[in-house]
Amino acid sequence: MHRKSLKDAICPIARAVSEIGDFWTLLLVREAHKGAERFSEFEKRLGMAKNILSRRLKKMVEDGVLEAQPFSGSRGNLYCLTAKGRSLVVVLLALRQWGEANLYEEGEPMNQLVEKATGRPIGRIGLIDQEGRPLASQEVTTVLGVAAGGQAAPGLPSTR
Amino acid sequence: MHRKSLKDAICPIARAVSEIGDFWTLLLVREAHKGAERFSEFEKRLGMAKNILSRRLKKMVEDGVLEAQPFSGSRGNLYCLTAKGRSLVVVLLALRQWGEANLYEEGEPMNQLVEKATGRPIGRIGLIDQEGRPLASQEVTTVLGVAAGGQAAPGLPSTR
Repeated sequence: MHRKSLKDAICPIARAVSEIGDFWTLLLVREAHKGAERFSEFEKRLGMAKNILSRRLKKMVEDGVLEAQPFSGSRGNLYCLTAKGRSLVVVLLALRQWGEANLYEEGEPMNQLVEKATGRPIGRIGLIDQEGRPLASQEVTTVLGVAAGGQAAPGLPSTR
Repeated sequence: MHRKSLKDAICPIARAVSEIGDFWTLLLVREAHKGAERFSEFEKRLGMAKNILSRRLKKMVEDGVLEAQPFSGSRGNLYCLTAKGRSLVVVLLALRQWGEANLYEEGEPMNQLVEKATGRPIGRIGLIDQEGRPLASQEVTTVLGVAAGGQAAPGLPSTR
């Protein structure tokens, strides 16, 4: 990857992939979202080598995706998602729905994202206009604009 | 990455990241979506080394994300998105919106996805229920289910 150029790109996709770096970041966000907080929990759940995990968590803290909090009685940290990290849930959701639709044979066991209250599978995401109406990929295009800055991730506050 | 185990995972996120492999795949899908078709176009637009690009395109054809079509007067191929490849546009969209919200200072130049017809920025995607109502990340959970199989990507037919 051309780290430098992607990091400064006018394309938000390029900046996003540059910052995320590789898919370990997304799997770590998935585990954090499912409740993992300690180094040993991430290590065990993902089977990652200690040195890779250590480097990755450090970078995610530097990037503001995770927040490191010391916890009493130990020299270790708790790693908690920030609002920025929590908003990566939408990227995980898009990957999940692509995987569901394209990578399973009928009848294979597969975990599913459902509403806690009703047990119903959640809705399929896709291109939409500002009123939430579906758009076909042919109906959109990219134009050069200017960043508004300081846009907060909607509805996804940090829980800590 | 634990290729083998992720490929057979019950988690669609894990299968998706295993199949996609790295972010080059997503940047190649972005360029294909913007009209790139030839080896030389992908090479020039992304500044990729020939050997990496060649391996990556081959894998994407094997995976059914791209379709290779010979074109007359040349030994080269045209690489076109399949329906499976085209449906990765939602993953690109999620990355884009995360980048927009988190990686730009106010006033920086940034390309934006807009409706062709109106020029309006497209809508923000996020967790929704089956009627399209927003859900908070605390309102959802994963349960073990069974793949329906043969789910087509909605509204994203291959154009070839």
